[in-house]
Amino acid sequence: MTAGVSTMAWDVRDWSQAHLARVEQALSDWVGRDAPADLGDAMRYAVLDGGKRLRPLLVLAAQEAVQGLPAAGLRAACSVELIHAYSLVHDDMPCMDNDVLRRGKPTVHVQYGEAGALLAGDALQALAFELLTPDDGSVPDAMQAVLCRLLARAAGSEGMAGGQAIDLASVGKALDEASLRRMHRLKTGALLQGSVLMGAACGPCPPHALQALRRYGAAMGLAFQVVDDILDVVADSATLGKTAGKDAAQDKPTYVSLLGLEPSRAYAAELLQEALAALADSGLPDTQALAALANMVVNRSN
Amino acid sequence: MTAGVSTMAWDVRDWSQAHLARVEQALSDWVGRDAPADLGDAMRYAVLDGGKRLRPLLVLAAQEAVQGLPAAGLRAACSVELIHAYSLVHDDMPCMDNDVLRRGKPTVHVQYGEAGALLAGDALQALAFELLTPDDGSVPDAMQAVLCRLLARAAGSEGMAGGQAIDLASVGKALDEASLRRMHRLKTGALLQGSVLMGAACGPCPPHALQALRRYGAAMGLAFQVVDDILDVVADSATLGKTAGKDAAQDKPTYVSLLGLEPSRAYAAELLQEALAALADSGLPDTQALAALANMVVNRSN
Repeated sequence: MTAGVSTMAWDVRDWSQAHLARVEQALSDWVGRDAPADLGDAMRYAVLDGGKRLRPLLVLAAQEAVQGLPAAGLRAACSVELIHAYSLVHDDMPCMDNDVLRRGKPTVHVQYGEAGALLAGDALQALAFELLTPDDGSVPDAMQAVLCRLLARAAGSEGMAGGQAIDLASVGKALDEASLRRMHRLKTGALLQGSVLMGAACGPCPPHALQALRRYGAAMGLAFQVVDDILDVVADSATLGKTAGKDAAQDKPTYVSLLGLEPSRAYAAELLQEALAALADSGLPDTQALAALANMVVNRSN
Repeated sequence: MTAGVSTMAWDVRDWSQAHLARVEQALSDWVGRDAPADLGDAMRYAVLDGGKRLRPLLVLAAQEAVQGLPAAGLRAACSVELIHAYSLVHDDMPCMDNDVLRRGKPTVHVQYGEAGALLAGDALQALAFELLTPDDGSVPDAMQAVLCRLLARAAGSEGMAGGQAIDLASVGKALDEASLRRMHRLKTGALLQGSVLMGAACGPCPPHALQALRRYGAAMGLAFQVVDDILDVVADSATLGKTAGKDAAQDKPTYVSLLGLEPSRAYAAELLQEALAALADSGLPDTQALAALANMVVNRSN
């Protein structure tokens, strides 16, 4: 059985639109409202009105797949987006990628200064964990603990931050495919897979299904990066909303530089099939949103 | 009754030494072991072999005061130290204080580059939350959630990061005492008070005692900053292990610049009495370590 076949009336655009509205509203409610001085503005600038919100949608899709608690799903969705947003703010700084354009806008350090960007990123990371630990009874304590654990691991030195460290150390070096895959598994894969696992932690999920979702998350996360590398070569800055061609300009190893363009496309398609097969194998009834998101990841144009 | 009077045989140096050994060992075991590339080294450089470990000791003292779970206390102690360490790493960077000396050693960005320091700080913050959420059954899930909540609030935009934003915005400006107090309540006070509250969250703590510990934490945290301002004026760099006189050089508002030196000393002494009175009022039997730490905060020379 192919995931999603049983629900022909279901439409991914409707689904995304409804959930994106919830996420945007929640982020606007929760980010930077009471922060002092410029900090709140910088945090909101970094997070609101921008981004595809892929990670929040993955959380919500997985939360629905396990029929999890909506309040927990929404908090988890926003928390992964905050981690993603903070990583972009810090990544764009002069000492890292020194990028001045992000989502078609000046980057945070251009707008608020380097110190302001540094602090805004730091505060966004803390806020991610604050969102996961409400004291209003809306999310059970045990679930809060699991969500914090998953997020901390996905964001930290054996996840996203670790991948960025490998990336930093690898500029100008020839990486083999195994090293490149490890870098991306950490740098972007950990948070993408973490989004799926956090969604799954919002409800009951049998071990076999959790294992399948882990495989789905790994394949989809890797596909995301392969497609990112492809788009960096074939798309222009206007479509991307960020500087195109910067990997080559910075002499960074990519799937395209390693495998070539067409083999990279074939690899992305193969990873998509792997992700969909894992969903079919999960035994979970409602995986159509996860399937649609994997398709979107591979077939996106920005 | 004055806190600590009933236990004449108890010695703060023995107590500190024993607990510092546990903290140092745990930090060495837990920080940066499996981080890739230079990241693990930079994280360990930022955290190990340095610092008075005041925050961990506050956590452990409060954990003992409520007869809390030692495993939870140790994790909480290390987690607050990681937040403190990451804040120093980022604070020392060129775009912030641009400091090259910390605890008598070159700062992290001098040693590992700015990008390396940025990432190490980010990874340390994530690790703090990872330490609080073990999956080995050593800390109950509900306790993990409370600890994460307290740490996130103390570190974030309405805590430490918020205070740093006010600090940044206040350079060269005349602040009145209320504004100065608010800045410090967030910048250093939130994490110091948070340390006490996290220790108290490691065991059962009646509401009245919790309220007293909150008052203790607020007074002690403010005293810490007043004394910091005094030391910045009266101590030399060698004693401080960091650049002395930099507040005046950077035209930062301080208690000394606002109140004068002697009134600042008197204010610190008054805050110490306030902290000790709160302990006496707590009704908790074993507050001698908390009392000794408050004394140490006010009477330290670095």
